[in-house]
Amino acid sequence: MSDSTSPPVSTVDSPYAELQRELRHIATLQSISGTLGWDQETYMPPAAAPLRAEQLSAVSSLAHERLISARVGELIAACEADTAVTGDEDEAANLRAIRHDHERATRLPTSLVRELAEASALGMHAWREARERNDFAAFAPHLVTLLGLNRQRAECMGVPEGGETYDALLEDYEPGMRAAELRRVFTALRGELTPLIRAVAESPHRPDTSWQSIPLAVERQAAFNRSVLERMGFDFSAGRLDVSAHPFCESPGPGDTRLTTRYSEDELAGALTASMHEAGHGLYEQGLPKAARFGQPLGEATSTGIHESQSRMWENFVGRGRPFWEWALPQMKRDVEVPAVQALDVETVWRGMNVVAPNLVRIESDEATYNLHIMLRFDLELAMLSGDLAVADLPGAWNDRIRADLGLEVPSDAMGCMQDIHWSMGAFGYFPTYTLGNLYAAQFWATIRAELPSLDEEIRAGDFAPLLGWLRANVHAHGRRYTAPELCRRITGQPLSHEPLIAYLREKLGPIYGV
Amino acid sequence: MSDSTSPPVSTVDSPYAELQRELRHIATLQSISGTLGWDQETYMPPAAAPLRAEQLSAVSSLAHERLISARVGELIAACEADTAVTGDEDEAANLRAIRHDHERATRLPTSLVRELAEASALGMHAWREARERNDFAAFAPHLVTLLGLNRQRAECMGVPEGGETYDALLEDYEPGMRAAELRRVFTALRGELTPLIRAVAESPHRPDTSWQSIPLAVERQAAFNRSVLERMGFDFSAGRLDVSAHPFCESPGPGDTRLTTRYSEDELAGALTASMHEAGHGLYEQGLPKAARFGQPLGEATSTGIHESQSRMWENFVGRGRPFWEWALPQMKRDVEVPAVQALDVETVWRGMNVVAPNLVRIESDEATYNLHIMLRFDLELAMLSGDLAVADLPGAWNDRIRADLGLEVPSDAMGCMQDIHWSMGAFGYFPTYTLGNLYAAQFWATIRAELPSLDEEIRAGDFAPLLGWLRANVHAHGRRYTAPELCRRITGQPLSHEPLIAYLREKLGPIYGV
Repeated sequence: MSDSTSPPVSTVDSPYAELQRELRHIATLQSISGTLGWDQETYMPPAAAPLRAEQLSAVSSLAHERLISARVGELIAACEADTAVTGDEDEAANLRAIRHDHERATRLPTSLVRELAEASALGMHAWREARERNDFAAFAPHLVTLLGLNRQRAECMGVPEGGETYDALLEDYEPGMRAAELRRVFTALRGELTPLIRAVAESPHRPDTSWQSIPLAVERQAAFNRSVLERMGFDFSAGRLDVSAHPFCESPGPGDTRLTTRYSEDELAGALTASMHEAGHGLYEQGLPKAARFGQPLGEATSTGIHESQSRMWENFVGRGRPFWEWALPQMKRDVEVPAVQALDVETVWRGMNVVAPNLVRIESDEATYNLHIMLRFDLELAMLSGDLAVADLPGAWNDRIRADLGLEVPSDAMGCMQDIHWSMGAFGYFPTYTLGNLYAAQFWATIRAELPSLDEEIRAGDFAPLLGWLRANVHAHGRRYTAPELCRRITGQPLSHEPLIAYLREKLGPIYGV
Repeated sequence: MSDSTSPPVSTVDSPYAELQRELRHIATLQSISGTLGWDQETYMPPAAAPLRAEQLSAVSSLAHERLISARVGELIAACEADTAVTGDEDEAANLRAIRHDHERATRLPTSLVRELAEASALGMHAWREARERNDFAAFAPHLVTLLGLNRQRAECMGVPEGGETYDALLEDYEPGMRAAELRRVFTALRGELTPLIRAVAESPHRPDTSWQSIPLAVERQAAFNRSVLERMGFDFSAGRLDVSAHPFCESPGPGDTRLTTRYSEDELAGALTASMHEAGHGLYEQGLPKAARFGQPLGEATSTGIHESQSRMWENFVGRGRPFWEWALPQMKRDVEVPAVQALDVETVWRGMNVVAPNLVRIESDEATYNLHIMLRFDLELAMLSGDLAVADLPGAWNDRIRADLGLEVPSDAMGCMQDIHWSMGAFGYFPTYTLGNLYAAQFWATIRAELPSLDEEIRAGDFAPLLGWLRANVHAHGRRYTAPELCRRITGQPLSHEPLIAYLREKLGPIYGV
């Protein structure tokens, strides 16, 4: 019996509500992979490795099956016909990104997904062994296979109009970014960075770094790291800081963001920079509107490059800055009762934190040289994907470029083209995001300094709230509302440019090296 | 084209192989709940609790759906018709247990499973609040609901021929055990235990326990605990020892068995007994043939009571024995450089480890009195389930029994009938397994002492390998090949009896209390 005065009551959810519920379920399954992955790198007993592989495989295939299901496709189509969704700017952006992810997932044949997963597992295994024995020839066939499968993958997913194969892969990490755009910015960056690094190398100034070797017990370092992260605004009631071989940040879902670092008793500030880097990622995760939008693009990070901009900003722009050490050094002296630390002065520490020197190894490189490593990898992976560079010729091309850019001789492929895990996993298009992180960080930093004129004083007082508040409002809160290029224009009024990074490096390195 | 000289090759798995694969997949999903549950009690940040609840619910419903699927039912039926399976004694036992589990799971309507899960969540929440405010009336309606749902549950699962409602619930924890059998053994036990405990209470002897308060830093306790567990044979490459509010053992799957304990600087041996207890559970898990039988009954523990027998054996029969302390005290003196520890002697420590004194709280009770707590709970939950005892009358019945058995007055329901979480979760039939653990441990221990005549000397030398070897061969290796009652007969030649436990207690308490 219907009462004509009341509106019709529907017990059926709107397609958009059902879609959100479905996405939340998928995200919950994916979040389990996150939790299991964190455990694997921190506390898992070694003998549990085969069980862990089975757990991860079970849960990720369940999530994938659900994401590519016909039901999700139908719901997306129904939402696209619903003006209540498409008429709302936020929800329309959310829906576009959902469509984007669903299409990319469904375009890949399950057989190719499996082939890629297997080739990647075999590739990583072969890479570990080949690197240990410095035997590039043993690794090369895997690289050939992985390149072939990724070319197929790019074809399935579709090359954007006017674009190239690489763009289809880059889309995994930097939606909306193109290889042509990267070439433009990277070429300009390299043009200015190479002479700057050469000038530093030729400078007679050599900052004192001997203080880094002041021994400090791991527990004291851990307490100090934690206190700095708390001060930065990292919420430990919704996160942790642990130890792992390679520092990382894993945020499975709302209320759960876990960082790791590694302590060495021979490197006073080594763990701190790693902790601040990961906390930069962690603050982004904690600032995303995940509680309300779990599983939805508006609750997710917009790109790997933007993610990296947050970590690099806290690690380098804040953590290697003089204002930071004007706060942190007295803090360290208070917390850590070690006589050699009491004798340190800010000027020495600040200079020592900003040494620039060519290094064969990417992950041991300083914030300037690091970018040359990335551009090298970008150019070589592009050339391998297009077929311009045969895999067999990779070591020679690598070594030539290191000689040209850094003036160093590569003593072994293990220290050369086999130093990184990425290609062995079949991750092509990932490397550029590291330098994108530096570029976005520098470009945002210039805007932040203009908008927060007392930033240095605040940092000097250990007050990071204004900076974090700015990042929350301008970057974190948007989730995937804007792509990285859109966000960059929105925040800085300009497209991505090499100039802010170069200006930042010149301003810092000038007084240290007289360049 | 078929070659007539070769046998026909089938690319289709046997139903038994497919069933095993299916069960392994279900076990993998269940193992994820185990890993997530461990994390929840050890390292999870508090704000992640809602996400964790969603993760656990997602993965447990996926596992449950798969277990009750028609396909699993068909495969079981096909295997039951396959003489290659039923003709093999081990595989036939395996298959019978698979059928048993599948039937119990499918007999429960999904709606009842959900109602129970909700009532249990609400019940635990209400219990926490009611206990804090000592307000039994606020908890009582939840207990009424949970009893009603469990009566329904017992009906669905079916009461065994000649049995009672309680048996259907007990079957979750102690397959093959019956309430009537428990009544028989418990009545006999209580008849001898009550006067023994009364005699101890009236004894003029009071062992010195002041040494328990020797303060010892947590890290030193942790290192000592770990070294004892290593010596016991716990494999740390396939396990861990961490800290949690309530000690537990969680073994998600092959190669992964995690223990927790808790350290108090005021209780020298408190963490050690908890660690040895959990390691007893852990050694059982590590000794099950899980690698080959993951997801199959033959790879699983046979009952909660047998599980508890392993923990109680290591905690009490080994860890409170004089031979153990003859090894452990010198060990502690070597590891721990604390003068007050150096002054301890074995006789004092051994006596202090074996104090018997009535305590209102189950988990703070000694190994003798503890059983009176369990029998009280068994009798009262039986009476509530049958309707003989109204929920409103529970506090009175509880307090009368505590007075009669322990000679103590219960000052509040929080310290009385609301002290345990079990009933608030709807777990009826669980409590008896604690005393079953003590009984099985005592009965096995008597056999072990007969079969390993130099056991005391071995323990005195810190050599636990013969004991562990015996447990591996006689208990762990069988998985669910035998039910607990079958295992007891097989090992000891006798049905379950109260006599070995009483004999063990008399032998120990005699010299300490002169009883």
